[in-house]
Amino acid sequence: MKQLAPPMYIGALVAASLAAASPGIAQDLSAMTQSPNQWVMTGRTYDVNRYSPLTQINTTNVTHLVPSWTFSVGTLRGQEGNPLVVGNVMYLSSSFPNKVYALDLTKDGAPQIWQYTPEQDANVIPIACCDVVNRGLAYHPATADHPAGILYIELLQGDLLALDAKTGKKVYQVKSADFHKGETMTNAPLVVKNVVIAGISGGEFGVRGRVTAYDAMDGHELWRAYSTGPDADVKITGVPNQNYESMRGKDLGVSTWQGDEWMRGGGTTWGWYSYDPELNLFYYGSGNPGTWNPDQRPGDNKWSMSIWARNPETGEVKWVYQMTPHDAWDYDGVNEMQLVDLAIGGKQVKALVHFDRNGFGYTLDRTNGKVLVAEPYGPVNWAKSIDLTTGRPVEVPEKRTTAKGNTEGICPAAIGFKDQQPSAYSPKTKLFYVPTNNICMDYEGVEVKYQAGQPYVGAIVRMFPGPGGNRGAFIAWDATTGKRVWTIKENLAAYGGALATAGDVVFYGTMEGWLKAVDAKTGKVLWKFKTPSGIIGNPMTYIGPDGKQYIAVLSGIGGWAGIGVAAGIGAEDPTAGLGALGAFGDAGQFTTQGGVLTVFALDNAPAKAASGR
Amino acid sequence: MKQLAPPMYIGALVAASLAAASPGIAQDLSAMTQSPNQWVMTGRTYDVNRYSPLTQINTTNVTHLVPSWTFSVGTLRGQEGNPLVVGNVMYLSSSFPNKVYALDLTKDGAPQIWQYTPEQDANVIPIACCDVVNRGLAYHPATADHPAGILYIELLQGDLLALDAKTGKKVYQVKSADFHKGETMTNAPLVVKNVVIAGISGGEFGVRGRVTAYDAMDGHELWRAYSTGPDADVKITGVPNQNYESMRGKDLGVSTWQGDEWMRGGGTTWGWYSYDPELNLFYYGSGNPGTWNPDQRPGDNKWSMSIWARNPETGEVKWVYQMTPHDAWDYDGVNEMQLVDLAIGGKQVKALVHFDRNGFGYTLDRTNGKVLVAEPYGPVNWAKSIDLTTGRPVEVPEKRTTAKGNTEGICPAAIGFKDQQPSAYSPKTKLFYVPTNNICMDYEGVEVKYQAGQPYVGAIVRMFPGPGGNRGAFIAWDATTGKRVWTIKENLAAYGGALATAGDVVFYGTMEGWLKAVDAKTGKVLWKFKTPSGIIGNPMTYIGPDGKQYIAVLSGIGGWAGIGVAAGIGAEDPTAGLGALGAFGDAGQFTTQGGVLTVFALDNAPAKAASGR
Repeated sequence: MKQLAPPMYIGALVAASLAAASPGIAQDLSAMTQSPNQWVMTGRTYDVNRYSPLTQINTTNVTHLVPSWTFSVGTLRGQEGNPLVVGNVMYLSSSFPNKVYALDLTKDGAPQIWQYTPEQDANVIPIACCDVVNRGLAYHPATADHPAGILYIELLQGDLLALDAKTGKKVYQVKSADFHKGETMTNAPLVVKNVVIAGISGGEFGVRGRVTAYDAMDGHELWRAYSTGPDADVKITGVPNQNYESMRGKDLGVSTWQGDEWMRGGGTTWGWYSYDPELNLFYYGSGNPGTWNPDQRPGDNKWSMSIWARNPETGEVKWVYQMTPHDAWDYDGVNEMQLVDLAIGGKQVKALVHFDRNGFGYTLDRTNGKVLVAEPYGPVNWAKSIDLTTGRPVEVPEKRTTAKGNTEGICPAAIGFKDQQPSAYSPKTKLFYVPTNNICMDYEGVEVKYQAGQPYVGAIVRMFPGPGGNRGAFIAWDATTGKRVWTIKENLAAYGGALATAGDVVFYGTMEGWLKAVDAKTGKVLWKFKTPSGIIGNPMTYIGPDGKQYIAVLSGIGGWAGIGVAAGIGAEDPTAGLGALGAFGDAGQFTTQGGVLTVFALDNAPAKAASGR
Repeated sequence: MKQLAPPMYIGALVAASLAAASPGIAQDLSAMTQSPNQWVMTGRTYDVNRYSPLTQINTTNVTHLVPSWTFSVGTLRGQEGNPLVVGNVMYLSSSFPNKVYALDLTKDGAPQIWQYTPEQDANVIPIACCDVVNRGLAYHPATADHPAGILYIELLQGDLLALDAKTGKKVYQVKSADFHKGETMTNAPLVVKNVVIAGISGGEFGVRGRVTAYDAMDGHELWRAYSTGPDADVKITGVPNQNYESMRGKDLGVSTWQGDEWMRGGGTTWGWYSYDPELNLFYYGSGNPGTWNPDQRPGDNKWSMSIWARNPETGEVKWVYQMTPHDAWDYDGVNEMQLVDLAIGGKQVKALVHFDRNGFGYTLDRTNGKVLVAEPYGPVNWAKSIDLTTGRPVEVPEKRTTAKGNTEGICPAAIGFKDQQPSAYSPKTKLFYVPTNNICMDYEGVEVKYQAGQPYVGAIVRMFPGPGGNRGAFIAWDATTGKRVWTIKENLAAYGGALATAGDVVFYGTMEGWLKAVDAKTGKVLWKFKTPSGIIGNPMTYIGPDGKQYIAVLSGIGGWAGIGVAAGIGAEDPTAGLGALGAFGDAGQFTTQGGVLTVFALDNAPAKAASGR
């Protein structure tokens, strides 16, 4: 972890940086993340560790946490993501139609400064496989033309929208994906210098996964890099991964597929992206191969299910590592890549830690894509282990699915022991805090014909609770050894994100709507509050203009796990909702649709002196 | 006020009453209202005074009030009404499609016991003039067949629905209104003994207003009494009102109309109903005459715009008093009738206090319908006064509207200085607490032809802020003299209801979403909290199983004042939303759509001993 800048008045910080900046030249977003008071990107810092150095709220006083104000985002479908706080303004977005708000933190109850409701084609709604979620905004620092900076949001219908942060007026809107072909957009973009990088959803529609970079100021396309196809399209210029035999070779994105199946090869890119400014690499995962029916696409299906390291300015691949070759379980590899420097086997390593849907927690060397640790973080039974020599899973043959029959009792289910819900890391405890699912499944491949814009799923899945019956858990994980340190069981999945703080309190949300505060060392639940709806968003924290520390979280049930409640699907068919109803068909007994930001502070905590800000 | 029963354990009270009751014979709902711990009918007591004898939360400690838990009702349109609390269960309903919930107060976060979502025809949505609101549930005490009692809700599409309170299963559903003719249902029913009385909305569709009584157990119709037409239909058997010349005579519901216009004569009945068990009379108001164009319906248009006293078992009229003969302003007279015994001019009077949309605060003798006090509670300019001899307003001729031209600058506007938002009364301060609008208007009649199920408005209205520019106020009122005692100005209307408590704290909500606590004596704002959305519901209070006092309020902007935000109508046309957009076109800058119950308690207040419950 970097040394933190001493707390200072944000306004002054911004003003000073602005004065130094030439007109039209961006401030450094990295520098802004050094202020612990604000939260300028989705994971707070580029390493997506969701760790705050703030300490006002700690294990002693967290029991005094109470809601300070609340805000309805005006939509009811699943609310993923989290707000940003830049200076004294909070920015947040909603599920479809992706409303964007700026709230004034200097005023009682944080009234709106502006709101923006994008015009979107409602025909996109059924194209979203797993609810019409949005994972939030990205921010570009102030420029001469945009004195409060620019906000970016990926619209479900496939546009990248840029808004002036001061006025809420559109800067530009560019078409990046075509929902008529099944391509949608749900993830939070990544801003690096003058580049905005957007992903794509639609792995159930035979789309071709990719990341696309745009000029932050005018939205013109800088580059596009696919997950499948020839190296030129994938932007592989050298050896994809020098550590593993099966990942060396030319045009593996074509040769590991049958015929032209790579053209509808999936490998979507809707997770949280991280970035290492020193290495100038950004990291993300690619999703399941197109069609869930493995029999229809022999081969490794590269580069679906892979971890990527790319140069943000050129898109060029530094390395890529495929976790689940020839996926037969929809172990969509999009989950975030946390960047932490760790001591492993007595050596300091620039590590990347990733909790994959396939049930393994990976620790890699992020400079070269070599796996250092890969251990199950839940009761995995489809593979015995990850072979560190080949980089490939050691599969359990009877759990490999096929279209020849139903394969029963596979753990984890397609939804993974962790799905999109992002984990956190505390440099104080050196532990990862992982919100998990505990769901297994039956899976049967089904022959499916590709037709643009039509579902290309090709499998019947029925999910059910994993061993123990609890459908989720919040766990602490040591990534140097690949071991759980503690576990908090949850009845439903811990489908919201985690927040770690220097106050040694870790926060997470549950599908029932509880926001919980936990002792980072022991996993003891110290406090909880019932928000209006199930939480699938991510808690975040900031210092308000009054010098007090606040915790904010979106509630609003939905996403894949909550699709039954969000879309009003009954529990009669356990294969409905791509199998989710089998595991979560009763979620409606525990929560209701909603869309509210709840912001917490310590009750009657004395306001800090001005110097505290 | 009645002497209160000493606080006791509700369960014991219910059990004792049940033991005494014969199978199938109802407990006495009146007796249940004597427990200050629960809230078994919409206004807490039959007098709809929205007064709680609870004192845990008082002027000294109310600053420590914090949210204890929250619950999303799963719909976004305007949330009027308030929950009921019976024993340890909270019951609440939502805007269309009128979801009903039972929440278990004995468990952390009050999880659902059951929920019920009525199947309704979505074609009813555009038939609702002023948002698809619902004003809440009515409760019938336990019977042998229904050990937790029965709940009643009026569905927007026109059905009275009865649900078993223990299981949430339908007891019956009867059609009471036909939305194809413009008839909808939005108000909270009234339960008296074995009778459930339901109202009707649709005054903008030329419906014929009425109240209908049903058998509480099986839903068969007991009687129906119209607001217009022959005395037999209106259930007038004697002199309608012996105090006033113009209200004596036979079949005035026909003779004060031209031709058969009384058949589409309006006089809807969607307000809050009160009941006097001693007099065995229930009280309510009837709304505007059919078509807002006065030129099209010469005459007094009886009995629109009237206060009614009826026998709940037969429907027979005891007396009726028309406030606004030949209405030319849509001063829909449905606002609630509060029943209070007051000392007026040295005499103790069984009074009825009513704040009408026409801007006058009325105090009547509720035994005979005689007006004792009628004074403006806002800057009225359409009438100089109410003549206490004739019972009629002394009009200002230039403010009488017509279809011959636009009449400008009328105060109050059609929405009234008070609309549906119910007021409260404290027997401690002897003051009424009235949430008000401060809105004026221009009004022009327009010739309109009746067609069943089509709007029959017949006027173009543009509303705008009243004198001073504040669009609302929360006021304290002395009904014995007809004078304001104090005023709290609000930027937007105080469009939510009021709650008075024996702790000398009065609560009310604002369209911005603030719940405010006020010193009952001085009107000093002691505390406020920003709920997720604008408040148009009513705060209520109860004692939880832990012995602590809770305050609960629904937020969710909508209703007539909030129709712009609720229905997504822009502010371009100030006559849109039946004129509301002219006054509230900017409401979306202050709030967003929502639907959340927020429940408050004192932070860290020690739980009371069992005897405190």
